Amino acid sequence: MADMPPDILDRLSCLLAERRGADPGSSYVAKLHHKGLDAILKKVGEEATETVMAAKDGDREHVVREVADLWFHTLVLLAHLDLDAAAVRRELEHREGVSGHDEKASRAG
Amino acid sequence: MADMPPDILDRLSCLLAERRGADPGSSYVAKLHHKGLDAILKKVGEEATETVMAAKDGDREHVVREVADLWFHTLVLLAHLDLDAAAVRRELEHREGVSGHDEKASRAG
Amino acid sequence: MADMPPDILDRLSCLLAERRGADPGSSYVAKLHHKGLDAILKKVGEEATETVMAAKDGDREHVVREVADLWFHTLVLLAHLDLDAAAVRRELEHREGVSGHDEKASRAG
Amino acid sequence: MADMPPDILDRLSCLLAERRGADPGSSYVAKLHHKGLDAILKKVGEEATETVMAAKDGDREHVVREVADLWFHTLVLLAHLDLDAAAVRRELEHREGVSGHDEKASRAG
Repeated sequence: MADMPPDILDRLSCLLAERRGADPGSSYVAKLHHKGLDAILKKVGEEATETVMAAKDGDREHVVREVADLWFHTLVLLAHLDLDAAAVRRELEHREGVSGHDEKASRAG
Repeated sequence: MADMPPDILDRLSCLLAERRGADPGSSYVAKLHHKGLDAILKKVGEEATETVMAAKDGDREHVVREVADLWFHTLVLLAHLDLDAAAVRRELEHREGVSGHDEKASRAG
Repeated sequence: MADMPPDILDRLSCLLAERRGADPGSSYVAKLHHKGLDAILKKVGEEATETVMAAKDGDREHVVREVADLWFHTLVLLAHLDLDAAAVRRELEHREGVSGHDEKASRAG
Repeated sequence: MADMPPDILDRLSCLLAERRGADPGSSYVAKLHHKGLDAILKKVGEEATETVMAAKDGDREHVVREVADLWFHTLVLLAHLDLDAAAVRRELEHREGVSGHDEKASRAG
């Protein structure tokens, strides 16, 4: 454990990658990897919908739990595609600076 | 800049919180905060759909960009509700350990 | 059966309304009504995501099945709120004419 | 106009199919067809999210308008794939009978 990354998102990326190819009966994530990409994407869609519903309820603690679920399942998706949290951080750093994010957003229309 | 958080998600949480109440014409995020919760939630839903589409295309670089967009807009949502990336990290750390995530997932059904 | 509406969407609206308040163990829809609005909305979100995935797969027969699932669960939602397919048809007729739909869409931006 | 289908969903299917290949500048739907499948799917995802938000607001008239938007954009999707409302109706009729829908739903898990 001494060499585990200090940040939770990096630790999760490591753990979720290890679950690929593990016995589907051994854990929730191993089962999700085994079911395949569509099962993972369904969960991403579900957690996004639940985030929207929690926010409409005005329940801040529930929003935190749902955003945690959403990030968790995007990390499963990244691991499934041999990607990780660091790749997303690099992308966000690349856009960094207000103008960077704003420029991106204005391009996206 | 010397006292900016070292992690990009924390830096973004700070920046996105500062944009609340700013002149809506001054930036994309200030405008989004000004439009209000529903406009932010629409973006969360949109970016989730685009993440699914990018993954179905099998375009890994596009997936990274869409997950970055999705995390970015969940950070805007958190900032809008006076929450931040640290709250989501704490929630994920709280669940940490394989059994923690698996137990949560099995409870969620 | 002689007085059942000839159109399947109207027949479904009648059936789904009858299931409100029925024994939750008696059918899938009775159970969904019993679970409540959030459970129904989760299904609407799920079926929309599955429609997107089926279309990305280019599987036309699968798209038809997923759109049927999506319409079905929006009919459950309408029934849950004491609304029906006829209300949606009236709204679409109200917008009818190309310009009507286009004007609506351009207003929505 | 004498030979237009009496049902609004069928009329829309006809109109939306005619818009494929039309000058993208001529109408909202012609432009959407021209942008292609991903643009249409984004709209399906958006309208599903907006349906969820309207229902959470408890605004029944808004729900009707959002379900109309959602059905409209699924009709655009069907037309884009050379399908129509009749195909979805046939699928729903095929499943008809309570047990049919319930069996389907229980299979879907």
